[in-house]
Amino acid sequence: MTYELYYWDGIPGRGEFVRLALEDAGADYRDVAREPGGMGEMMTFLNGERGPHVPFAPPFLKDDDLVISHVANILRYLGPKLGLVPADEASRTFAHGLHLTLTDFLTEIHDTHHPLGVDAYYEDQKVEAQGRTARFLSSRLPKFLDYFETVLSANNGNEGNLIGGQIGYIDLSLFQVMEGLHYAFPRAMRDSGNRWPGITALQARVKERPRLRDYLSSQRRLPFNESGIFRHYPELDVEAEG
Amino acid sequence: MTYELYYWDGIPGRGEFVRLALEDAGADYRDVAREPGGMGEMMTFLNGERGPHVPFAPPFLKDDDLVISHVANILRYLGPKLGLVPADEASRTFAHGLHLTLTDFLTEIHDTHHPLGVDAYYEDQKVEAQGRTARFLSSRLPKFLDYFETVLSANNGNEGNLIGGQIGYIDLSLFQVMEGLHYAFPRAMRDSGNRWPGITALQARVKERPRLRDYLSSQRRLPFNESGIFRHYPELDVEAEG
Repeated sequence: MTYELYYWDGIPGRGEFVRLALEDAGADYRDVAREPGGMGEMMTFLNGERGPHVPFAPPFLKDDDLVISHVANILRYLGPKLGLVPADEASRTFAHGLHLTLTDFLTEIHDTHHPLGVDAYYEDQKVEAQGRTARFLSSRLPKFLDYFETVLSANNGNEGNLIGGQIGYIDLSLFQVMEGLHYAFPRAMRDSGNRWPGITALQARVKERPRLRDYLSSQRRLPFNESGIFRHYPELDVEAEG
Repeated sequence: MTYELYYWDGIPGRGEFVRLALEDAGADYRDVAREPGGMGEMMTFLNGERGPHVPFAPPFLKDDDLVISHVANILRYLGPKLGLVPADEASRTFAHGLHLTLTDFLTEIHDTHHPLGVDAYYEDQKVEAQGRTARFLSSRLPKFLDYFETVLSANNGNEGNLIGGQIGYIDLSLFQVMEGLHYAFPRAMRDSGNRWPGITALQARVKERPRLRDYLSSQRRLPFNESGIFRHYPELDVEAEG
């Protein structure tokens, strides 16, 4: 069975969380919108020409007749099939909840550069973005990462992963968020020192997984850039306040 | 089995989406944090004293040994148990995706009054809130509601509901969002006329469901207020632009 992933070309964005799981598992998939003619194919879903289960926005995944919207929903579905979540209901439910927390975190990361809304240019909200980012770096970012560090510590699994005994999709997604934060806010992340040792160790371990190592150095991996969620604007990357 | 809902007292907030499903189904539940001593009980979960599956924030639901975080995750779990979603996987997956779109919509609704972040007072971001709300009302609100109207139209169910043949949890949640929007932005919603006839009809129908009618007029139903997601600030409720 070939999975079909639909997501905008040109940015890692939200689609990248799905790619990481598929790549880590060595799953067979098409990255449809990055193929010739694929954008048009993606639009037929969004325009309602492919049945009543219309997605609001990419990414979405097609598996046979099933169309699945939203990253967390997609990974909840793929997790057991790809062996990237423990089988019991409590673990699956907790993993999904953790991913929904990551989703909220991602929204706040995005909004650092677009506090006044996605309909206005960054250049027209730079001042507001500086205020919002300063507060994000001093307050919200530590709150989220402290939480994930606590979850890591509370897990008796011995690989330093979030749930159960081995790395799963939620660990891959946390890896991607950390990569993005280091890209967007290198100074703030450096200044935070070794505040999140468990997460930092997990990030390094994920990067060395054989299939991911190949993937991360391939053309399939899209670099972070200033059209995505994680943007490096030096004027926003100030020192975190006390 | 008595479900235990944990959510802040004093605001309808995100907890209300879970309450509506439980009330509509006539389920047996405790609204723990609204009981004497309940706030302390809620905090034991958030402080990690009740096992490794620590929630990031309320609401969360406890059912036997299972702790479930995030509204969409909770309703995905409760839906089949309460008879509020069709049984087939495609419908359940679509319902969950729709709720995640509502979650994104809710975040944008909240951010109209807090564009610079949750750590600053509304009074200190009033000007920015006016700019963000104007764009929200003219662009984002119609985008989301047009989408749900499209989904309603695409469903061949004959009760004017979003999925399958009868009202489910996703319809109850859309009802709550509409109630909140009319509370927060009465002028803008009135100015939109009858742009979303399907949603408007659904909203009226949900309100007349026998168990919900009783609930909505009870003391258990918390009114909207200016500490919640939906806030009525007249200075933000301007006419929608063209």
